[in-house]
Amino acid sequence: MSAIDSGLLSPVTTGHDELVDDAAFLDAAIRAEVALVRAYAVVGVAPASAADGIVDALGVDGDGRGAGAGRPSDRIDLDRLVAASVAGGNPIIPLVGLLRELVPAETRVWVHRGATSQDIWDTAIMDVAARAVAQVRTSLAEAADALLTLAEAHVGAVAAARTLTQHAVPTTIGARAAGWSRAVERAAARLEGLKFPAQLGGAGGTRASFVEVTGSVEGAQALVAAYAGVEEAPAPWHVDRAPVTEIGDALVAALDALGKFAGDVTTLSRTEIGEVSEGEGGGSSAMPQKQNPTEAVLIRSAALRAPQLAATLHLASALAVDERPDGAWHAEWPTLRELLRLALGSSAHAAHLAAHLRVDAAAARANLASSGGLIVAERLSIALAPLLGTAAVAAIVADVGSGADLADRVRAAAGTAGVEVDVDALVDPANYTGVAGALVADARAAHDARAAHAESAPARPASSETAQPGPAGTRPEGGGR
Amino acid sequence: MSAIDSGLLSPVTTGHDELVDDAAFLDAAIRAEVALVRAYAVVGVAPASAADGIVDALGVDGDGRGAGAGRPSDRIDLDRLVAASVAGGNPIIPLVGLLRELVPAETRVWVHRGATSQDIWDTAIMDVAARAVAQVRTSLAEAADALLTLAEAHVGAVAAARTLTQHAVPTTIGARAAGWSRAVERAAARLEGLKFPAQLGGAGGTRASFVEVTGSVEGAQALVAAYAGVEEAPAPWHVDRAPVTEIGDALVAALDALGKFAGDVTTLSRTEIGEVSEGEGGGSSAMPQKQNPTEAVLIRSAALRAPQLAATLHLASALAVDERPDGAWHAEWPTLRELLRLALGSSAHAAHLAAHLRVDAAAARANLASSGGLIVAERLSIALAPLLGTAAVAAIVADVGSGADLADRVRAAAGTAGVEVDVDALVDPANYTGVAGALVADARAAHDARAAHAESAPARPASSETAQPGPAGTRPEGGGR
Amino acid sequence: MSAIDSGLLSPVTTGHDELVDDAAFLDAAIRAEVALVRAYAVVGVAPASAADGIVDALGVDGDGRGAGAGRPSDRIDLDRLVAASVAGGNPIIPLVGLLRELVPAETRVWVHRGATSQDIWDTAIMDVAARAVAQVRTSLAEAADALLTLAEAHVGAVAAARTLTQHAVPTTIGARAAGWSRAVERAAARLEGLKFPAQLGGAGGTRASFVEVTGSVEGAQALVAAYAGVEEAPAPWHVDRAPVTEIGDALVAALDALGKFAGDVTTLSRTEIGEVSEGEGGGSSAMPQKQNPTEAVLIRSAALRAPQLAATLHLASALAVDERPDGAWHAEWPTLRELLRLALGSSAHAAHLAAHLRVDAAAARANLASSGGLIVAERLSIALAPLLGTAAVAAIVADVGSGADLADRVRAAAGTAGVEVDVDALVDPANYTGVAGALVADARAAHDARAAHAESAPARPASSETAQPGPAGTRPEGGGR
Amino acid sequence: MSAIDSGLLSPVTTGHDELVDDAAFLDAAIRAEVALVRAYAVVGVAPASAADGIVDALGVDGDGRGAGAGRPSDRIDLDRLVAASVAGGNPIIPLVGLLRELVPAETRVWVHRGATSQDIWDTAIMDVAARAVAQVRTSLAEAADALLTLAEAHVGAVAAARTLTQHAVPTTIGARAAGWSRAVERAAARLEGLKFPAQLGGAGGTRASFVEVTGSVEGAQALVAAYAGVEEAPAPWHVDRAPVTEIGDALVAALDALGKFAGDVTTLSRTEIGEVSEGEGGGSSAMPQKQNPTEAVLIRSAALRAPQLAATLHLASALAVDERPDGAWHAEWPTLRELLRLALGSSAHAAHLAAHLRVDAAAARANLASSGGLIVAERLSIALAPLLGTAAVAAIVADVGSGADLADRVRAAAGTAGVEVDVDALVDPANYTGVAGALVADARAAHDARAAHAESAPARPASSETAQPGPAGTRPEGGGR
Repeated sequence: MSAIDSGLLSPVTTGHDELVDDAAFLDAAIRAEVALVRAYAVVGVAPASAADGIVDALGVDGDGRGAGAGRPSDRIDLDRLVAASVAGGNPIIPLVGLLRELVPAETRVWVHRGATSQDIWDTAIMDVAARAVAQVRTSLAEAADALLTLAEAHVGAVAAARTLTQHAVPTTIGARAAGWSRAVERAAARLEGLKFPAQLGGAGGTRASFVEVTGSVEGAQALVAAYAGVEEAPAPWHVDRAPVTEIGDALVAALDALGKFAGDVTTLSRTEIGEVSEGEGGGSSAMPQKQNPTEAVLIRSAALRAPQLAATLHLASALAVDERPDGAWHAEWPTLRELLRLALGSSAHAAHLAAHLRVDAAAARANLASSGGLIVAERLSIALAPLLGTAAVAAIVADVGSGADLADRVRAAAGTAGVEVDVDALVDPANYTGVAGALVADARAAHDARAAHAESAPARPASSETAQPGPAGTRPEGGGR
Repeated sequence: MSAIDSGLLSPVTTGHDELVDDAAFLDAAIRAEVALVRAYAVVGVAPASAADGIVDALGVDGDGRGAGAGRPSDRIDLDRLVAASVAGGNPIIPLVGLLRELVPAETRVWVHRGATSQDIWDTAIMDVAARAVAQVRTSLAEAADALLTLAEAHVGAVAAARTLTQHAVPTTIGARAAGWSRAVERAAARLEGLKFPAQLGGAGGTRASFVEVTGSVEGAQALVAAYAGVEEAPAPWHVDRAPVTEIGDALVAALDALGKFAGDVTTLSRTEIGEVSEGEGGGSSAMPQKQNPTEAVLIRSAALRAPQLAATLHLASALAVDERPDGAWHAEWPTLRELLRLALGSSAHAAHLAAHLRVDAAAARANLASSGGLIVAERLSIALAPLLGTAAVAAIVADVGSGADLADRVRAAAGTAGVEVDVDALVDPANYTGVAGALVADARAAHDARAAHAESAPARPASSETAQPGPAGTRPEGGGR
Repeated sequence: MSAIDSGLLSPVTTGHDELVDDAAFLDAAIRAEVALVRAYAVVGVAPASAADGIVDALGVDGDGRGAGAGRPSDRIDLDRLVAASVAGGNPIIPLVGLLRELVPAETRVWVHRGATSQDIWDTAIMDVAARAVAQVRTSLAEAADALLTLAEAHVGAVAAARTLTQHAVPTTIGARAAGWSRAVERAAARLEGLKFPAQLGGAGGTRASFVEVTGSVEGAQALVAAYAGVEEAPAPWHVDRAPVTEIGDALVAALDALGKFAGDVTTLSRTEIGEVSEGEGGGSSAMPQKQNPTEAVLIRSAALRAPQLAATLHLASALAVDERPDGAWHAEWPTLRELLRLALGSSAHAAHLAAHLRVDAAAARANLASSGGLIVAERLSIALAPLLGTAAVAAIVADVGSGADLADRVRAAAGTAGVEVDVDALVDPANYTGVAGALVADARAAHDARAAHAESAPARPASSETAQPGPAGTRPEGGGR
Repeated sequence: MSAIDSGLLSPVTTGHDELVDDAAFLDAAIRAEVALVRAYAVVGVAPASAADGIVDALGVDGDGRGAGAGRPSDRIDLDRLVAASVAGGNPIIPLVGLLRELVPAETRVWVHRGATSQDIWDTAIMDVAARAVAQVRTSLAEAADALLTLAEAHVGAVAAARTLTQHAVPTTIGARAAGWSRAVERAAARLEGLKFPAQLGGAGGTRASFVEVTGSVEGAQALVAAYAGVEEAPAPWHVDRAPVTEIGDALVAALDALGKFAGDVTTLSRTEIGEVSEGEGGGSSAMPQKQNPTEAVLIRSAALRAPQLAATLHLASALAVDERPDGAWHAEWPTLRELLRLALGSSAHAAHLAAHLRVDAAAARANLASSGGLIVAERLSIALAPLLGTAAVAAIVADVGSGADLADRVRAAAGTAGVEVDVDALVDPANYTGVAGALVADARAAHDARAAHAESAPARPASSETAQPGPAGTRPEGGGR
């Protein structure tokens, strides 16, 4: 097989892209073709034997994966298929021919019967997306868990909050990690809400061919429902690409949340800051002392690419003219794949990074102290201004900025003003972390509530009957999720 | 007031951007500042008289809009404020100073107390977004309604479905319009699911200042809840920008759906096609005979710009490092405004366009017939190939392509083969529109179900009490919507 | 070799992406490593025998391609390399180890000596880009030639110019094709101006390691010059990514020009318009009568994706902080590759499409006539308004819009006004094509002038000495191109 | 005048956007209309008196700016114009009507004669762009100068080079600043190469109307040349939008270079790093001790937005179908304006920031030393490994990582091995800065060479005759620049 891309230029996804490689798309396309034949058998239009013969010949068993040894795509010469895809502009046209060569002669007529290429390819894309998104959700859940654990482990560890790169006020390592976890959970929830509808509209979205073959509108709709594995035939979405853009948007949102986490890791890993380090950072041959935040760097590289890919999906949606557009549909395929791939790689690395991140609480404390205590300047304004006046507080801050000791300086000013102040408590950054602890506790509570809910009313039931994808291997929009 | 942009370069939004102009943002920022003072009074920390004095002075009445004559922003010299915003990089820093000049001296201390600029500005942005999105939803609903009416009016009008620009199979004008309506409704539903959380995190997201001022973590959380107008204080989202990107994504999805509709209108309006025309198309001074699809052109111009703007929001989200990032936050403001503006203008034009679109069903029929009946070639393959063989069908198609009459040609072939076929019925495109009628009926049923649901359990109740925004004029994430 | 991407999702590039596949990048990286060793030998620091030994062992001969049978990448297990690239985040770190295994033990020390991964990888990327861009330029030149030939063949063929989708005034098929050609030539010229600098900055861009190894600043600069194949060492560009974005921008500009051409082809191919058709259009299994403009559709799909990819390159450039950034550099690699790939595929298809485009001048004339002659309404305004008054002209246009014969109507009005007008000449669209003929002639003249210039002062001299890439296989910025 | 945008959401451009506000576009459009009338007079078709009457009435004097007091746009009610622009989708249609009201009745016929809206609007856009780009170039030149001065002032100041956020090897503050300067100069050079062609194609790009009015092809071409202020009429570019995208690309490249500089400033300003600070950093009301790198933050916010805007311009170019497209052209206007605006603001801030940046060389030295001298680890590998073996060097690095003194440790190892090494020289980071000094000197030499070249052969001559824009206020492509 000739590879344009084996991952050499994409270290962030290496080892995590099997679910979205060309073979995975080909598997899904074959599953969709098989689902159509089965649906014809289900509605009593094709003989059951034809469906069985095709299933046997193409190697697709009950769970939609390849039967026994191998995957359905193993029976297809991918290079030949790719080369033949150019003339018609999509791989389904030649695939149908190849599949017909593989099946028993008497069943050939049922392969792709009444369908248009887009029916099969859109269904395949959704099938691939559904499987990849499930994996991304698993990785995100792992990452969120690890981050929450991290937050709890450092719930009281004081650190500098930074705004516009400058120390602002104290926060805690726990609050920061809880924020990472919360954002990742939110992104995972958005992915959970996605739907992956099968497509079966026929050449113009009217299903006229299926009415012709089945003999009635009702028959066509029943066929579509059987194909999609749902009760009622959903509407075609051949030129309403919202199912695609919603996936794209949710993937980018996940990559954003991971990018924010990774950006904080690279920042906090800086040689001068050193508050975190990667458990298994990347080395450098030339500079043996270096410990690079490689996973965070890779995650960031994905986050920088993703938004523009999602924009392409939206453009393709907006430009979906006619009943199949003149280029916009084709622009979706590699773009959606790349987004799925980035999310797979980035989320896997984030789960690993979160589980192995080393926190140096002492470094955080040292950094916090580096401004001579002025990290609590805001508190002084609030607490002392009413007692000493704003000018006096400003003078204290200025003096400390010039090297004076904060506690001494406050004590002196309080003495002069005849005011009693618990200076040590006042200037201790640990006493000025607000609701930081509550943010960690709330994140845990929300997490546990979500987990309990998921257990009692599982979004993806475990029973073999309902857990199985429909014949077309995807979840239709009207489905139960 | 010096205007960079009064709309000269943006005809698609002209007349529809009042909700998102600079004054609207300034109004919202002032409302947020007032909401904070009121929240202090609600939790019993500030004297009620202070809140009343500030409300009186700033001209913000109960419904969050300007009291009596004028809007709160009228009391601020916008040019002076804008000029003063540069030094600190955001408008809230100088606004606080200007507001303190306006309020009674004894209440000054309560203005912006404990808050950071981002608290007010983020809340203001969400407030503006909430109001603009509500208007967009109204326009989308109007557009969807008009399109559904159009679909029903042309439920049986046959037209050519086109794929890759070529006639493919028959469809109906009704099915096409039902598709437009369905997509617009879907986009509206996505906007309906949005949340517009208020922000009150303090300088580092820990609410330490509010704990300091109120005296306790509980006090701070109660303050936040009062400010946001909800029961329980939501988490800060200062560096989790999902609330912003979710709005951006949903707006782009709406602009996509409108862009698809508009693209079909410009295509179907082509001089050679002429199946639709704008009720009030734009003229041309030089070419008096022209009737341009101006509204559709403008809607398309918005759809081409929107995806890249949403991408910027995602980048800003991914780059939200630290507890306030070094540029990413600032990149959001004009980008979100422009997206809201485009959605306001585009949806308003779409509602008008949909309500006034002229359909020329006769032109559609004439176009359909232009291929000598070959629009039903797919049907011939399905229906006749089993009877006559594929070679015979191919010969018929080839002959008709060369000018033969389709019905005659089928009749002759059937005669030769001794097969009885109702040729007239077979070759009539009106008999090959599949589920087109059902798609219109289903769209109506879904629309009515949604409307009934909205009536029985209104997402946005009409009672004055609940319809009012919280003190900060927005809906928090944890809120009831 | 395990392939993520063999082209299944990318029909527009299939068959045209060999120059940018993973193996091509690996070849280029090995060439860069070899160039460094050779440069050490050139400046007399490494023994010539070491360089020879390495060249022999790695299979890179004088022209920078693999010696004898096979390519340098053949000696490397790509899958193993890809897997090993993750830990350090780039493929050069493990590649160096693999290369050292291949070379004679005594030469190992010279492999990658003093270099940092980015030196080799950036040089490799530029090497790949240079070769791919050369191929793109060839295809663009072919396309421009074919379009110019087309323009000349139809220099006098009148057709409707369309604005906002509506017939506006007459133009010629020749003028339109000359416009396509001119735009493609402009894009090619921009690509011709690109530079592909080698990179050799060392770990921090200071070349300190090369000063250490060579013993002097002069030695290091001489080494860089030898490596880059130029007279004077250019500055490092490790964190000034303009060389990358300039390539990206020029590629997108080329894809824009091709997208415009393809968009006109899909539009003019519409069933109702039919002024052009692809010589070898894509068929449809279901609808045998269809002749899809497949190449144009594929070209358009590339044009819709490219701008967002170039945007990613710019973001990576803007975010190139420090002396090597934390993610931005990594985001460039697959993005630039995809842009090169799209340009390769799109330009090859455009050259083919331009050479085989079928023009139906009769259809163009028929379309032109479809408005009853009102295509010359602007001319009537200019020519007749001074004679008859604007009201009279408006009345003529209105009447013709309602079905009156244009020539008759003008004749009558002229008669009434007692004005003599050559009505037949006036209303003939062929007499209202302005400078259309000159545009074709000018495009030819400009083309020939460019060709003559290229011949007399070849930008890419043919002599074997100068035509060869430098040791690093690329053209440095300071170079002669 | 009702302002959507007075700058409240755009602090980075406040005070720098006068050249690109709506009034500036309106001025330019009026200048273009006047240029057309003048061109008619120049070619002897319109009476000179008509041109003079129009010039007088519209207040446009010889230099293309408003005559005497005020600007041409002052005579137009912008709000009325904006409102009237919607119907036809562009502001020129109603503008022509308003201008005709202003000019003497007998000259009315010459206003906009033969032109299409796009002629005037495209010319206006290029006029605005040319003036804005000239200002951006001035600011970039100032920034580059200041950065070069900075580089020379710190030519020998050693600092840590950082890769993937980690200390890598030594560099100098001078080399880093020279890199910033070089990148900014490169961006300025790219802007210098831009062309801003006038547009005069008539309704379909054929200039048929101008042939009609002037009586010949030659007359029309002479008219175009006079309008554009050049010798020979350039080709129309109504649907070849490369002139627009080239401006966009060059602006983004400038914003990239500034973004890189600003990103380094925000990084090096971090509280823990402290190697630079803004001369006039932004304060914080709540945290008086903070000194924010506000200008750098604002510059970065612009850099994050720009690439996506340029992508929109490319999309609009690729989608420029027909002889005027159905939305793509309209999408350009606000997008190009926003890019120009960002470049104006960002470059002005960069010039100021560069001139006022405070460098703390002592902090840089302290940071450099923080790794116990391991910043020279790479040098140790190169210099000592041949003497002591790689294992011994690794042991030294490990020990120093654990707290040992580097010089002592090297001395001991050298002693053990019986090798003589100048340890103090070896471990001094100042001795491992490679060509850092040469990079500064080269940047100065290149700068001076460019300046000398500019003086001897000025690209923009100062003489009043040639410096003036052509009648249409822009430089055509075929022009002398």
